[in-house]
Amino acid sequence: MAQLSKRAAQMPASPIRRLVPFADAARGRGVHVHQLNIGQPDVPTPRGMIEAYQAYDEEVLAYGPSQGLPELREAVADYWRGAGGEVVAENVSITFGGSEAALFALAAVADPGDEVLTTEPFYANYLGFATMGGLTLRAVPASAAEGFHLPSDDVIEASIGPRTKAVVISNPGNPTGTVYTPDEMSRLGALVEKHGLYLISDEVYREFAYGAPVTSALSLPIAAERVIVVDSVSKRFSACGARVGAVISPHPDLSAAFMRMSFARLCPATVDQRAALAAYSTPPEYFAEVVAEYEKRRDTLVDGLRAIPGVETYRPEGAFYTVPTFPVDDCDRFAQWLLTDFAHEGETVMMAPASGFYSRPELGRQQARMAYVLGVPALERSLSALRAALAVYPGRV
Amino acid sequence: MAQLSKRAAQMPASPIRRLVPFADAARGRGVHVHQLNIGQPDVPTPRGMIEAYQAYDEEVLAYGPSQGLPELREAVADYWRGAGGEVVAENVSITFGGSEAALFALAAVADPGDEVLTTEPFYANYLGFATMGGLTLRAVPASAAEGFHLPSDDVIEASIGPRTKAVVISNPGNPTGTVYTPDEMSRLGALVEKHGLYLISDEVYREFAYGAPVTSALSLPIAAERVIVVDSVSKRFSACGARVGAVISPHPDLSAAFMRMSFARLCPATVDQRAALAAYSTPPEYFAEVVAEYEKRRDTLVDGLRAIPGVETYRPEGAFYTVPTFPVDDCDRFAQWLLTDFAHEGETVMMAPASGFYSRPELGRQQARMAYVLGVPALERSLSALRAALAVYPGRV
Repeated sequence: MAQLSKRAAQMPASPIRRLVPFADAARGRGVHVHQLNIGQPDVPTPRGMIEAYQAYDEEVLAYGPSQGLPELREAVADYWRGAGGEVVAENVSITFGGSEAALFALAAVADPGDEVLTTEPFYANYLGFATMGGLTLRAVPASAAEGFHLPSDDVIEASIGPRTKAVVISNPGNPTGTVYTPDEMSRLGALVEKHGLYLISDEVYREFAYGAPVTSALSLPIAAERVIVVDSVSKRFSACGARVGAVISPHPDLSAAFMRMSFARLCPATVDQRAALAAYSTPPEYFAEVVAEYEKRRDTLVDGLRAIPGVETYRPEGAFYTVPTFPVDDCDRFAQWLLTDFAHEGETVMMAPASGFYSRPELGRQQARMAYVLGVPALERSLSALRAALAVYPGRV
Repeated sequence: MAQLSKRAAQMPASPIRRLVPFADAARGRGVHVHQLNIGQPDVPTPRGMIEAYQAYDEEVLAYGPSQGLPELREAVADYWRGAGGEVVAENVSITFGGSEAALFALAAVADPGDEVLTTEPFYANYLGFATMGGLTLRAVPASAAEGFHLPSDDVIEASIGPRTKAVVISNPGNPTGTVYTPDEMSRLGALVEKHGLYLISDEVYREFAYGAPVTSALSLPIAAERVIVVDSVSKRFSACGARVGAVISPHPDLSAAFMRMSFARLCPATVDQRAALAAYSTPPEYFAEVVAEYEKRRDTLVDGLRAIPGVETYRPEGAFYTVPTFPVDDCDRFAQWLLTDFAHEGETVMMAPASGFYSRPELGRQQARMAYVLGVPALERSLSALRAALAVYPGRV
């Protein structure tokens, strides 16, 4: 055969899904696997959303508008106005999940050979989207000891070069769960302005904040000129399989660029958008309950991890992830060993080794991402299993 | 604001949708607009597909597998085995419509700065996908007088350079409706092999062939090494709004590349895939009826166009498009004029000027793409309107 493209060869394998065959094998041996590796919430999808699928009844399932159903664009714009953004429906393009939104955002601001800057650990798929677009993703390390909060300006600026076009953040953070403070967001805004960059802010976990509300990049003074928000219904409404997201920017030139990109792939899926629209009528109690539940889980997991000798962790302010540091030689090996060589009372734990969330994998060698997407009892059993595992793991340090 | 990327600036506007505001205005004046500009079939979606949406009833609308539901991948592989391809489910990745399939195919074989070769007129969005991926789309002109059939080897080879990585075709063709003969497909296979290229074959209109069945690129001897097929349920099942497609290649390295690309955007939409799966149980009578109907429409349109003085056209063998040549100064102007300045018995026609389907727009100056997606009576009224329009259009030549 002819050669594949370099980008095809460079597309990263998923750090989240690499262990799936080992988990399947463990289940095959009758071991119960607590799946804390993937951000698939167990919270019920709002019933109105499911009913919107059931209510679909047209003769022809036709193309819709390229940028999405007008009512949905309006609902998304409303949502972000509630977060302090000065946006209207025309600033919203509906996408295939947050994934396509991130791809559009990167393609709109950077050309092949350009760089985008993020902190690490970062959402692993940013690397995939950058690779697809021919971009280099550079990353400034954030520190576990500081709860992965924003590094100092000096450190960030040292990584900004002539080809840097944008700073990319997820806030609340995936995989870290870190929520940037208003001060950190102002600092980012000033940096982006000073260096003539864009700020691509992935805020899909916005509802999941356990302290102060999240400061949206859309509420910054630079928003009108320099901000692109990546959005999705996946986590907000526990509807990961709907694949409905949005890319939002108040600037008309960016909105127009997203429109042309949207044209090229015709339109988002019609029925999923109707379901997403229904989701936006979800009453606030839904979120209050969900957030209270996740906060309980977070505390169960964090307190439980801290009680295990040698494990260090911070208390994440949002999302439903945390990245603890384990007293092991290598979390890739440890996470695999948990599935291949270990069980405690017939159970084990699946987690995502953090190396895949770093551009320098060695920085995450002792870390793993844990998603607290199971209830408190399952988390408690997971913690017991982990404690037992760390007592016998041969690579313990 | 900072600068947009070059590719954002270069993303083409849609030649198919540019006239929409003029059509809206015409409707506002009470003119009935026969929409022959867009490939939105009016054929009913198979009922089983609609019922699959209605039957959806899970508590959590969760992520599915990145490459799609196993049963759907199997169904798609079955379909292509029926077309002579030696493919299994592992060679199939489910995508967001044929659009994402084309994007994946291009990204897998070509890097920024590389070239892909097609014939023109071509499906306009190939230019958009190439632009998104940092690629150059080169095009060899096909001749209207020859029904847009494959140019000679010499002509094609003159456009193959050191950075050419693939030949891209749509077969049956969009916008041309041309179906390549088995000889033409063999010729393409030999060319691709000789120059060490890939063949990306967009076969989404496969069911719409009014003579001999379509020769799939997957049935060529080079298929195992060099063929990627772009597929979609949009046209096959009149389900454009489902946004379910597939990218198919027998070569395991390509399948693996598509898997990694699929990982990066997590998964296709769950419920749409279930609907697509249901569609694959559609009985053959559905297609027989649909094809008989489209054939009648094709003949109505082609015979009607030929009867209008000065209009020249071929008889397309497939899809539901044709690209006639009109005796006018400029089809962009003519198509707009039809909407802004003309009505015949309260009716007019909307068509897509062909210039947008060419890399050299001047080649399509007198051509337009017409989609015969309306029934025979509407086509007959459209033809009457066109005849009347050409008698009075000020730019008639």
